[in-house]
Amino acid sequence: MVPVIDHVAVLGAGGWGTAFALLLADAGRNVTLWARDPRVADAINTERRNERRLPGIELPVQVRATSDRSAAVADADAVVIALPSQTVRANMTGWALPRGVPVVSLAKGLEEGTGLRMSRVLAECGVAPDQIAVLSGPNLADEIGRREPASAVVAAAEHDLAVDIQRACHGPNFRAYTSTDVTGVEVGGVTKNSIAIAVGMAIGLGLGANAVAALTTRGLAESTRLGEAMGADPLTFQGMAGMGDLVATCFSPLSRNRSFGVELGRGVAVEAALAHGRGVVEGARSTPVVAQVAGGIGVDMPVVSTVCDVLAGLLTPAEALDRAMARELKPER
Amino acid sequence: MVPVIDHVAVLGAGGWGTAFALLLADAGRNVTLWARDPRVADAINTERRNERRLPGIELPVQVRATSDRSAAVADADAVVIALPSQTVRANMTGWALPRGVPVVSLAKGLEEGTGLRMSRVLAECGVAPDQIAVLSGPNLADEIGRREPASAVVAAAEHDLAVDIQRACHGPNFRAYTSTDVTGVEVGGVTKNSIAIAVGMAIGLGLGANAVAALTTRGLAESTRLGEAMGADPLTFQGMAGMGDLVATCFSPLSRNRSFGVELGRGVAVEAALAHGRGVVEGARSTPVVAQVAGGIGVDMPVVSTVCDVLAGLLTPAEALDRAMARELKPER
Repeated sequence: MVPVIDHVAVLGAGGWGTAFALLLADAGRNVTLWARDPRVADAINTERRNERRLPGIELPVQVRATSDRSAAVADADAVVIALPSQTVRANMTGWALPRGVPVVSLAKGLEEGTGLRMSRVLAECGVAPDQIAVLSGPNLADEIGRREPASAVVAAAEHDLAVDIQRACHGPNFRAYTSTDVTGVEVGGVTKNSIAIAVGMAIGLGLGANAVAALTTRGLAESTRLGEAMGADPLTFQGMAGMGDLVATCFSPLSRNRSFGVELGRGVAVEAALAHGRGVVEGARSTPVVAQVAGGIGVDMPVVSTVCDVLAGLLTPAEALDRAMARELKPER
Repeated sequence: MVPVIDHVAVLGAGGWGTAFALLLADAGRNVTLWARDPRVADAINTERRNERRLPGIELPVQVRATSDRSAAVADADAVVIALPSQTVRANMTGWALPRGVPVVSLAKGLEEGTGLRMSRVLAECGVAPDQIAVLSGPNLADEIGRREPASAVVAAAEHDLAVDIQRACHGPNFRAYTSTDVTGVEVGGVTKNSIAIAVGMAIGLGLGANAVAALTTRGLAESTRLGEAMGADPLTFQGMAGMGDLVATCFSPLSRNRSFGVELGRGVAVEAALAHGRGVVEGARSTPVVAQVAGGIGVDMPVVSTVCDVLAGLLTPAEALDRAMARELKPER
């Protein structure tokens, strides 16, 4: 079966964009990787490395980099959006992609201010909704860079488009499953950083595997409620983009969000814990956005709102635990 | 709200039965714990300890032990079955429980030979189906013994019965959610030990968090397929008895099943790895039973059948990984 997609443009040379370019090259595709910074593009073309974002990894020659966005997408059979979620609109506004070309979003999160999913932001930037696919799953970029096996789910409203993307990225170490639930796959990853902070707080407070497993499960339950309110299939949250991504984020000791939560649980103040962390603690920024969106559509998210209150200094992690245990008894769904 | 259940008989003084007796006592119940061995019952009554099964824990005075089964259930408002699953039929046959008293099963697994869920075994032993509740979740007994917070789900065909049990076990460190999906809550725990062995094998082979998260997710997906074929609600598998229990089992470094899998992944032979383990590796026994039941009703369970083949010496863990990555591309559901 010959994949219909040969040349892929990947927009964004962060860790995940760079690792995804490598993965596509291993799958037999020709890749053009767009980096905002010309020095990053040069280093990729001359040294085959993006040392700051994917340290220690040599990129295949099938990955060529450019800092010229129009050149990157010229002749592309598909365009992958690997931009930070809060920059997608600014990057895509007033800039037309080639017509009829599939656009695959790797961007996770809801847009601040509008609360929109990334596929909706892309649509507002002029991408036809039936061209849009989204890909998500337990995909720590460093491991993908080291060619360790991984899986994901790719969703598109049209099943055939999802299958095209599935085939295009299918290589020796990467398998994608298909779905038609774009909303579910996008919302699945929205709360994982908040839940990882909560898990970290529980660990910092000295709680054990039972409590962490219960917290992860109830975190997924409220993520599912948010998804259902936005039109998603609840079962999508049981898959790679929900449980899979959540488990990889919560149980990797390398997770910055979890490490940040551990410090909070041990009694370190929010500002100090943020200052200790290497790199951005995404959940510290995204949690209030999720809480606001959930509040706006009337979805009860006790884990997210508790993390929000701890971040705002309204509650200590120990008080948060007491509040969680004192909640009224409920059905599981 | 006064709970309608005051005196509870717990049959089985293993780790989980003993910890559940403690949890009920903390919740304000009076508990009679039945131990097969009179010396265990004596040690509980005189020393307040069941040192072999729940080391280092002092049991509350509200837990009284006996090795007389009829005395244990006399005047009980509810009976908890905390027996090893393959002994439930032998223990319950020819022995009538008080009429109209709720029976709560903590026993996990399918019966060898018949493939029946434990609530069905209890029904065949004469317990009225509308008296039966089942409780499951991420509940490592040692942590419950140390009074670390934990949650579970309790299911009964009649919602009111589930609520009665929920209230009866609600204490300072334990919360149960209710469900009416008895089948789902029982099947949720059936494959966790097989999946924990597979996760161990992956870790032993040196795979990372992406692969382990994907394996856990696909393990839950096949568990869900088995449950659906037996009449369960797939969403139950997203809850405490499915994902919750699975995560606690797969991510606790203390799990015997996972440790056994790690040895296999490192190249140790099955018999040698079994001999190294302290205590029983439940998954080594239950995996072939699950595979047989699944085969009988036509449910595809690649993780379970792969573990089965490795246990039978038909496949090495490395070959199993190759086989898993080479499977045909599929939709997620």
